[in-house]
Amino acid sequence: MFKKILIANRGEIAMRVIRTCKKMGIKTVAVYSEADADSLHVKNADEAFLLGPARVNESYLKVDKILEIAKQTGAEAIHPGYGLLSENISFANACEKAGIVFIGPNPTCIEKMGSKIEARKTMEKANVPIVPGGNEPLRDADEAVEKAKAMGFPVMLKASSGGGGIGMQIVHDEVELSKAFASNQKRALDFFGDGAMYLEKYIVNPRHIEIQILADKKGNTVYLWERECSIQRRHQKVVEEAPSPFLDDETRRKMGEAAVRAAAEIGYANAGTIEFLVDEDKNFYFLEMNTRLQVEHPITEEITGVDLVEQQLKVAYGEGLPFTQDDITLTGHAIEVRIYAEDPVTFFPSPGKITKLTLPTGENVRNEIGIESNSQITPFYDPMIAKLVVRGNDRQTAINELKNALENYHVEGIKTNIPMLLKVIEHEAFISGDTTTNFVEKYLPKKTKTKTK
Amino acid sequence: MFKKILIANRGEIAMRVIRTCKKMGIKTVAVYSEADADSLHVKNADEAFLLGPARVNESYLKVDKILEIAKQTGAEAIHPGYGLLSENISFANACEKAGIVFIGPNPTCIEKMGSKIEARKTMEKANVPIVPGGNEPLRDADEAVEKAKAMGFPVMLKASSGGGGIGMQIVHDEVELSKAFASNQKRALDFFGDGAMYLEKYIVNPRHIEIQILADKKGNTVYLWERECSIQRRHQKVVEEAPSPFLDDETRRKMGEAAVRAAAEIGYANAGTIEFLVDEDKNFYFLEMNTRLQVEHPITEEITGVDLVEQQLKVAYGEGLPFTQDDITLTGHAIEVRIYAEDPVTFFPSPGKITKLTLPTGENVRNEIGIESNSQITPFYDPMIAKLVVRGNDRQTAINELKNALENYHVEGIKTNIPMLLKVIEHEAFISGDTTTNFVEKYLPKKTKTKTK
Repeated sequence: MFKKILIANRGEIAMRVIRTCKKMGIKTVAVYSEADADSLHVKNADEAFLLGPARVNESYLKVDKILEIAKQTGAEAIHPGYGLLSENISFANACEKAGIVFIGPNPTCIEKMGSKIEARKTMEKANVPIVPGGNEPLRDADEAVEKAKAMGFPVMLKASSGGGGIGMQIVHDEVELSKAFASNQKRALDFFGDGAMYLEKYIVNPRHIEIQILADKKGNTVYLWERECSIQRRHQKVVEEAPSPFLDDETRRKMGEAAVRAAAEIGYANAGTIEFLVDEDKNFYFLEMNTRLQVEHPITEEITGVDLVEQQLKVAYGEGLPFTQDDITLTGHAIEVRIYAEDPVTFFPSPGKITKLTLPTGENVRNEIGIESNSQITPFYDPMIAKLVVRGNDRQTAINELKNALENYHVEGIKTNIPMLLKVIEHEAFISGDTTTNFVEKYLPKKTKTKTK
Repeated sequence: MFKKILIANRGEIAMRVIRTCKKMGIKTVAVYSEADADSLHVKNADEAFLLGPARVNESYLKVDKILEIAKQTGAEAIHPGYGLLSENISFANACEKAGIVFIGPNPTCIEKMGSKIEARKTMEKANVPIVPGGNEPLRDADEAVEKAKAMGFPVMLKASSGGGGIGMQIVHDEVELSKAFASNQKRALDFFGDGAMYLEKYIVNPRHIEIQILADKKGNTVYLWERECSIQRRHQKVVEEAPSPFLDDETRRKMGEAAVRAAAEIGYANAGTIEFLVDEDKNFYFLEMNTRLQVEHPITEEITGVDLVEQQLKVAYGEGLPFTQDDITLTGHAIEVRIYAEDPVTFFPSPGKITKLTLPTGENVRNEIGIESNSQITPFYDPMIAKLVVRGNDRQTAINELKNALENYHVEGIKTNIPMLLKVIEHEAFISGDTTTNFVEKYLPKKTKTKTK
């Protein structure tokens, strides 16, 4: 196994990676910006080196400096965490060139999955369902009806040159489509001077459900079940759980097998995530692939007992997976919430000094955190300051654990989204498992702004 | 199930019990002393009532006041935690009289196990091995030899009126015993005016290993494996682990079955612990029974997945155990260390204000704690301020996790035993599993006092 690795990240994910390294007896090299000089990840690593000023362009994204430190310290590999350089093709290439192992997939995989069009093509080849449609212009209303029938109603009719919802309409049947084609084409012509129209399948009340996979360099790929990540705010996940309260075993298996095909198609080797949209009838459609460790990976670890970081390290070193698909069990239920330094009502970031921090504790609570009392939350980085993960024998027990843990989570000096998280998990729609991507808009309307406590 | 219970304790164990109550949907009533008014357990319970001044006699031991609060608030049962009133017969009786369920065994069980002589007799009846010997005076050297042969050498010869080691000797064979009898009897006569001598089996390099049991009111009793608690300082446990690195499956099973016999003999219903001394040849001898939740119960929970507090509540309510012996599995390895507010060199208590507290976090770390940043550690209560529990797939992984967690455990404002704990777990004797009750004296001699870092 590697004797020493460098962690090219900060905060809770740097702490997370260091922890598994210590467990495995691997020495760690941290890097940090001036703003992070007193950070936990700096204290916790065996060695730590300053990269530069606070801004990521001058610190955490400085590829040359990071590689130089890796060489200097004898680090054999680099773990990029998530965000920052984790899906940066030129960084992955630079590592390879420098003779340092990039703990992630082959750069070609990152490239293939980085482009939406390329990714859709690859998925079609791998027989993974994609959202039907495309941006090829339709000849006329008849062709529109024919295509819509093939992909199934409802569909979204869109103007090729459209924007701001102009020339765009959801249609539910053939008659409506014929009328809509004419009227929207006219509107598009009027507004954009271009009447080209195209169709996309419209997914009603979709859920965001993703499959965790693990693949080694010997051609073995397994799936580690799903994560339900529908509850989002401005496309940021807020609450994630595993397993999904919505899936049945059959759909779960089908999605898992599709994810494995997707990874195998591109010769992927690393931990990875295939995101799907799932409609009300449990049809699923490829959304995108994340070629790195995911923020919400802990809930998968909780229900499977697999340390994903450990497997990433082993795969990167060239070891084969120590298990086959049949060995992957699913036990209990896990939920993660993301703690953001933000105003719970206005959602504005809330930087400042944490004057006091008390974390929830106990047998079913897992804190992922890179800050402590007296830490300064700066505006330079992601406002996510920590993750709280709970487990339970079943979903309701996990929700009870989460409620108790959130009530015992005390952050003083800055504002956090904890009150909003409590509203989510106490909502009957959440408790009943009705978690679709419009959850926050539907159930947590803005009027909460005027509420007093 | 109970709708509301009162927790007649403080600190981490009060927090522990509240947590399971919240998971089960049971309301909680906390009680507290003036010194604990700002405590986490007070904030965390649904209701909280002041008992009186800091001293336990004026607060946590005020039986009448506690029962009055229980009645007033409609609490149906009282969880006593450990220490304080947990093994107090008159409190258990008073609860019964007041019509409030004492979450513990029948008072008769506490009584039977509270007296050493009575407990030994009960164990003999239940066919549980006890340390051979007793305080019946020996007629002469010949009777001593005869008895010693029956119990097996080495034996400890003691003067009935002895003290301070006078008239006491370890003897290894018949010849030595005959000589020792004469000389020690003479010495005892000279010193105490009483030459009465008696024998006890001498256990060489003993280990303290205890068995966790669970018993319901319907006559079902199961054992949940053992805890190795040999590493002690002045009869206070410091490091506990499960399973014991010393036991084999056969001995483990035998001890478990003996523990079940012990509990069944007295009609025990509750969680309970049978402590044994185990000699180098894996012979085991009953030491005592603790008729309550044990400080170190979390490590059993970690290797079995059983919530012992939940089972205590269910048993007290009258439910039967939800599993049989065959359902109790043993997975992985868990270690607990006790964090004491004390000078790591002189072992003197170190009260004061905690100016900053940073806890270790992560998937294999479990913190049991009732304090936070700014908490005041007073001299009125046990100096144990927290417990740190880690788990791993195997013992070495758990030790690595523990080392990392202890290195990330930062308490400022008071002194703690964390440096001493690190010395224990980094010692090769600990790593190799050589954990006998003389560990601290043998491997951590006082000369550490003069060491500088």
